[in-house]
Amino acid sequence: LQSKLPNVGTTIFTKMSALAEEYKALNLAQGFPEFDCSPDLQRLVDKYVRSGKNQYAPMPGALPLREAIALKTFEASGYEYHPVTDITITSGATEALFVAISTVVHPGDEVIVFEPAYDSYVPAIELSGGIPVFVTLDPQYDSIDWELVKSRVTDKTRAIIINTPHNPTGKVWAASDLRALASLSEEHDLVVISDEVYEYIVFDGREHISVASIPSLAGRSFVCGSFGKTFHTTGWKLGYCLAPADLTAEFRKIHQFLVFSVVTPFQFAVAEYLTEPEHYLSLSAFYQRKRDLFNEAIKDIGFVLKPSEGSFFQNVSYANLSDENDLALAERLTREVGVASIPVSAFYGRETDFKTLRFCFAKHDETLLKAAGLLNAAR
Amino acid sequence: LQSKLPNVGTTIFTKMSALAEEYKALNLAQGFPEFDCSPDLQRLVDKYVRSGKNQYAPMPGALPLREAIALKTFEASGYEYHPVTDITITSGATEALFVAISTVVHPGDEVIVFEPAYDSYVPAIELSGGIPVFVTLDPQYDSIDWELVKSRVTDKTRAIIINTPHNPTGKVWAASDLRALASLSEEHDLVVISDEVYEYIVFDGREHISVASIPSLAGRSFVCGSFGKTFHTTGWKLGYCLAPADLTAEFRKIHQFLVFSVVTPFQFAVAEYLTEPEHYLSLSAFYQRKRDLFNEAIKDIGFVLKPSEGSFFQNVSYANLSDENDLALAERLTREVGVASIPVSAFYGRETDFKTLRFCFAKHDETLLKAAGLLNAAR
Ligand SMILES: CSCCC(=O)C(=O)O
Ligand SMILES: CSCCC(=O)C(=O)O
Repeated sequence: LQSKLPNVGTTIFTKMSALAEEYKALNLAQGFPEFDCSPDLQRLVDKYVRSGKNQYAPMPGALPLREAIALKTFEASGYEYHPVTDITITSGATEALFVAISTVVHPGDEVIVFEPAYDSYVPAIELSGGIPVFVTLDPQYDSIDWELVKSRVTDKTRAIIINTPHNPTGKVWAASDLRALASLSEEHDLVVISDEVYEYIVFDGREHISVASIPSLAGRSFVCGSFGKTFHTTGWKLGYCLAPADLTAEFRKIHQFLVFSVVTPFQFAVAEYLTEPEHYLSLSAFYQRKRDLFNEAIKDIGFVLKPSEGSFFQNVSYANLSDENDLALAERLTREVGVASIPVSAFYGRETDFKTLRFCFAKHDETLLKAAGLLNAAR
Repeated sequence: LQSKLPNVGTTIFTKMSALAEEYKALNLAQGFPEFDCSPDLQRLVDKYVRSGKNQYAPMPGALPLREAIALKTFEASGYEYHPVTDITITSGATEALFVAISTVVHPGDEVIVFEPAYDSYVPAIELSGGIPVFVTLDPQYDSIDWELVKSRVTDKTRAIIINTPHNPTGKVWAASDLRALASLSEEHDLVVISDEVYEYIVFDGREHISVASIPSLAGRSFVCGSFGKTFHTTGWKLGYCLAPADLTAEFRKIHQFLVFSVVTPFQFAVAEYLTEPEHYLSLSAFYQRKRDLFNEAIKDIGFVLKPSEGSFFQNVSYANLSDENDLALAERLTREVGVASIPVSAFYGRETDFKTLRFCFAKHDETLLKAAGLLNAAR
């Protein structure tokens, strides 16, 4: 069999989780919460499973969930997505991103991708015969150089993928970045694919600015979201894609043949749970406290803590401490110290010399303190 | 936006279900059971949701479910799929089929497809740049003409897609068909993609013969299955793909970027439920009785009943009764008579003159009798 993805192996998340399990290490690698979702939400699942919501949902998703998403998006961004024509429920944001990319990219098309990038974007582009064009972010995760982005646009550029809050860096895009994106994409008629799965996790008073909040951007964008990070239910695989009706029509053509529809009882449960906004509006404070707890506990190791403005990830540079490459170090810390992390070079698709590890702090306080203790002891 | 699937609209299942809802018609169109899954299975879901199985499953699926599938497949076919390397849990058989096709098909590759065909195969082939090559089945759903199949094989043929029990016809492949498939695919080094979602629904003492039961075939096949039809849970989107380790490795490269993983609590629930084989081995008798009840009730209408050897579909020809095309008739019966069905031409991707409707008999007895009554009254 000739491989469709010759340069791809098993994802770093699968690899590090397996290694963590093998060595009984604390898993601060793969991004998922250690704690469970709310018992109220669990009861809602049981209610809908028992009341017979077990057959195919409509292909675009259960209408009450689409309506609830339209409402929360309108309240956050002022943009009105129509539940019938503009919103599709997907098997997690991963499927939403895959379908959005597949919808837009034809063979030979170029797609601008910011590096470091979540690892699913590039294979999805390549499966559609497209060509990723990278814009490497400053390793200090400083501001985005829009002149550099502009210089990468050619006649073949079809789309640009953005991610805010950003995984792995935790960078939250500023209003000025979204304005620059809007003018660039208008000028060159680019489709925008926006990964916003950490939309409810932003720190230090920052605001998440969705591409939906700029009407000219919303009109040319696929906005991909998820409930996994928001409700501590990464295993439910419930996400969504917002896009104007013409883009959504093409998106659904592919979605319908890829999974057809998505787990019905969870859709109804989450729709009902969404009626209480404090179920998600309290998330930033919850995670900011965990970030601060973890950072305080590791502050004497000598790591340089990079800014974590959102998401549930803390990046640390160890360039001042060791010459080891980040994959080797992440593996060694898992095996020898008992703490798993993600080597940030995995988000570049190649080895880098940034010498940065990503720790996930979506863990119980005790786990964070124990991990910090192990790392301190190994210093 | 230039469409990736310019010839595709909304699936016929979505269309007819929407029309059925609009006209409050009995929905014998889209294939899903009207009855609910077992309360025991529902309780198992609740158990695993409450016991914290709410985060990402491992990318290839929860191990207990893969082990349970390995066991049931071994008992039915004698073939040993290894749970760790050969089995992947998917978001329904739809995802399994999409990923298998995407794994095998490169631009310019030809894929043999039997017509009538389930509507997701061809778009999946086309999205990978492949070319579907059709072998049209005898409209009487008689035996397969293997000389004809052979004549369609060229240097570019990479794969062949089969489906047994077959949707929409209900045809169950004979042992001789599988032997012919084995020698053809060996001779021309074809990959086989086998859709076996109705594996537990076969009638009149017939046996479902999986491609897994012929070792030389199993070694070159992706076998796609699902629990939706087996446990009355089409809305849980839980399926699987069986393939030897080398094929599975390539399959997972794509699966991991398409959905990453699949609903965790349902995986554990179904794994436990599978430990009682009568939960699925009683399904054939259950549906055979429904087929017979429905056919007896419509026997005076004048339809020619085509053989339904398996699945939960009954095809009827009305060529002797009317000249109307099948889409027009199916829509008219939905609007005017109150019974929705599927026009079989939808499975050809073009209008045909076979004048055949497909009725789904996975409905309560009263619904089947009521539908038959309405059809009789409209005669
Ligand atoms: C789908 S597994 C990866 C989870 C995640 O988003 C991350 O760790 O970055
Ligand atoms: C995924 S909706 C279609 C269900 C089905 O298998 C059918 O009706 O043929």
